Amino acid sequence: MAKNITPKEKNFSQWYQDVIRVAELADNAPVRGCMVVRPNGYGIWENIQAVFDRAFKKTGHENAYFPLLIPNSFMEREAKHVKGFSPELAVVTHAGGAELEEPYVIRPTSETVIGHMYSQWVQSWRDLPILINQWCNVMRWERRPRLFLRTSEFLWQEGHTAHASRKEAEEETLLMLNVYQEIMSKDLALPVIYGEKSMNERFPGAENTYSCEAMMGDKKALQAGTSHFLGQNFARAFDISFQNRDGEIEFAWTTSWGVSTRLIGALIMTHADNDGLVLPPNVAPVKAAIIPISDDDEKLKDDLEPMAEAISSRLDRALGAQATKIDRQYHIRPVDRFFHHLQRGVPLRIEIGAREFAGNLVRIVRRDTSEREMVSLDTIESRVKDLLSDIQNRMYKQAYDFLQKNTRDVSNFEEMKEFFASKDSGGFARAFFAGSCDDEDEIKSVTGGVTVRCMPADDDTRGKCVFTGRDNARRAIFAKAY
Amino acid sequence: MAKNITPKEKNFSQWYQDVIRVAELADNAPVRGCMVVRPNGYGIWENIQAVFDRAFKKTGHENAYFPLLIPNSFMEREAKHVKGFSPELAVVTHAGGAELEEPYVIRPTSETVIGHMYSQWVQSWRDLPILINQWCNVMRWERRPRLFLRTSEFLWQEGHTAHASRKEAEEETLLMLNVYQEIMSKDLALPVIYGEKSMNERFPGAENTYSCEAMMGDKKALQAGTSHFLGQNFARAFDISFQNRDGEIEFAWTTSWGVSTRLIGALIMTHADNDGLVLPPNVAPVKAAIIPISDDDEKLKDDLEPMAEAISSRLDRALGAQATKIDRQYHIRPVDRFFHHLQRGVPLRIEIGAREFAGNLVRIVRRDTSEREMVSLDTIESRVKDLLSDIQNRMYKQAYDFLQKNTRDVSNFEEMKEFFASKDSGGFARAFFAGSCDDEDEIKSVTGGVTVRCMPADDDTRGKCVFTGRDNARRAIFAKAY
Repeated sequence: MAKNITPKEKNFSQWYQDVIRVAELADNAPVRGCMVVRPNGYGIWENIQAVFDRAFKKTGHENAYFPLLIPNSFMEREAKHVKGFSPELAVVTHAGGAELEEPYVIRPTSETVIGHMYSQWVQSWRDLPILINQWCNVMRWERRPRLFLRTSEFLWQEGHTAHASRKEAEEETLLMLNVYQEIMSKDLALPVIYGEKSMNERFPGAENTYSCEAMMGDKKALQAGTSHFLGQNFARAFDISFQNRDGEIEFAWTTSWGVSTRLIGALIMTHADNDGLVLPPNVAPVKAAIIPISDDDEKLKDDLEPMAEAISSRLDRALGAQATKIDRQYHIRPVDRFFHHLQRGVPLRIEIGAREFAGNLVRIVRRDTSEREMVSLDTIESRVKDLLSDIQNRMYKQAYDFLQKNTRDVSNFEEMKEFFASKDSGGFARAFFAGSCDDEDEIKSVTGGVTVRCMPADDDTRGKCVFTGRDNARRAIFAKAY
Repeated sequence: MAKNITPKEKNFSQWYQDVIRVAELADNAPVRGCMVVRPNGYGIWENIQAVFDRAFKKTGHENAYFPLLIPNSFMEREAKHVKGFSPELAVVTHAGGAELEEPYVIRPTSETVIGHMYSQWVQSWRDLPILINQWCNVMRWERRPRLFLRTSEFLWQEGHTAHASRKEAEEETLLMLNVYQEIMSKDLALPVIYGEKSMNERFPGAENTYSCEAMMGDKKALQAGTSHFLGQNFARAFDISFQNRDGEIEFAWTTSWGVSTRLIGALIMTHADNDGLVLPPNVAPVKAAIIPISDDDEKLKDDLEPMAEAISSRLDRALGAQATKIDRQYHIRPVDRFFHHLQRGVPLRIEIGAREFAGNLVRIVRRDTSEREMVSLDTIESRVKDLLSDIQNRMYKQAYDFLQKNTRDVSNFEEMKEFFASKDSGGFARAFFAGSCDDEDEIKSVTGGVTVRCMPADDDTRGKCVFTGRDNARRAIFAKAY
């Protein structure tokens, strides 16, 4: 167990911060609540961007860029939207040496300014759908910031689409929820429960919100992505109207959906251990660290480094550019060099010493299980690919088992309170629910923070509400959440 | 000639705006001086990012992300820096519902906040070099904004490196200048003159600035990228110090370098024509538009669309994901469909009608020369690749010839004035120069805006200064510039 990390069983929140520090993922910025995403953290974000971006494009979306600043008056056009976001806004009052006539806010999200542009781009049903995504920074001033989970500035993508019919917009909302869920499972090794949000947890201005909910190592839920059906609310506020096939003028139906750098927090709290970070190979910036080891400088220069370089370029060709990294930290002990990559969550360590050189072999060590094996250079590409795919699958399975083990059906409110009160239980409580916003508030206050996370989309069984006793209630997942 | 575009000979500046409009590259945002980069424009930016990013990583750089906001006090630590940027700053005075104790500025560039972080990351010579790049938005309030060329917010990359010696930092500055120049030539088909800036044109706080200067269609220069040797100025201001190999404490040597969405402006003003945009294939979001043509719906559905889809997936496999786009605008005339892609600068148009279907052929039309040819499906991948590479090379050559044709050696100031005074001449004047900042100011004022663009790095001939008559002056390029 690493000495520079608080064990997660002892203090989960300190452990989380320690992992970020030792893996050099991020630092606090000299700006309240903001973060600096260091290269090791940003490399993960680049890979997360790549897998999502590919899926967005495959489903017909294009990227664009809208302005950072939003006129204050835009925010006020949608009543719930401004109410939800105004406490978190950062405001620009001066620019170019003078006071502005109307202050601008830094975008907390871009429905308003994008709505304004769509109103100019849409005239006829032929201009629809508009399927646009934006990768950018947004700002929501945080009182209690936590790196990656809640920061005043964060990076994200926000998809914004406009459609000619309610049905099409609803389908888009669910399609993107599904894209999120698939990528989180497949590439981030994050099993998630996905479904509709309760009324209390809807996006300000949305008619309906859906989310993916993941279970963190402390059994709390983390909302990992959201997809909103905005109805005609923003279309009305910004006059996104069009002439339909029958020549009538209608408002468009819009959606928005987003995932953020919060996903890096989810990766840490799902997969990291008491030695540091453990990364799913599909989003690991470095998939294998190649480590030549010898006390003999000449041996290093003549044999081991050339061998490391040959392996590196072979594997980069097989796995993608920059998939491997050669470690040249000869001034520290081999064990410390191993630990360096282990703490950073690099899936595979490839060690090369004199013996390996002589035998045309390498020693490969897995980050997730610490298993080691000798692999012949002849088969290194295929063996490394198999190992990475095995690590990816095993990490998903481990997280999936954890989620299953800590999810329980509860049939009445007493049982639910008990589930969340005991130190040994807690997690996701599955129960039927048909309560009001006030009921949700009461549950939250009585249980010390338990909320409805979502109503799973793939579960349409009905039953008696755990709180009100009403029949024909939908199944919901309750949990404490980040 | 397109009716919706002002001819460039008539009004170059209106032509530029018209091309942006018809190609749907960008719109003015509802925020003063800011722009919305529309999908057609952003797709170009994504490809520009990809080619530069690959080169940065190949030369050992990693990406990271630093905060959008910078404490006002940071700006003030480097005297020339704050003087240079303060007229252009946007200032955040309120956040989270309260007035801030210290205002933040939106980054106009990030030397200061990055310097602050580097001072925490660097202790020993072993922590150096730091080779980091950031892709982000920045803000410099503009009085006379022009889409892509000068906007209050723009997208860019800023590389920031720290080194243990002057020599190494100087080498880095030139290395990145070279990377810029190579990519601009190879991928953007932009021939550039690259070299050192004169004193008047240095980055505020830099010891030395280098730039790539391209010639636009109106013979004016556009600074397409810059690379700065910052000496120890920012290291001193932010205490980036380290223990060297001899155990002494020293300040680090830093560099910074950047290119921005301005490059899209450069592409337009170099390659576009009176029909609209013309894009170099290496950065064109869509490399070929596939256009099935028939009045017969059944023919389209049964024969032409399946053929278009087969061609699209074959070409996407050969050229990269989403390299082709199938045009299904059957409600407009074929000629308008052709024109749609032509105005957007798509390098190749692939037309499929009944005759082509029957003959297992396609008709391919080049955007740059309007040449057309019939190509058998059997060889379509290789022929399309050859055509794209030929277009890329031809576009570079055309721009290179234009640059050569409009560059002239001038040996005295009278000759220079004449060169820039005549409507038929103008362009780049090559002359020896050894003047002062005041001399530069005077030249600018006498000639109506001519400045020293750079002193070409690959030209070390010396001669008599065109303005002062001093001997042993360096060769410089003079031009009016954007």
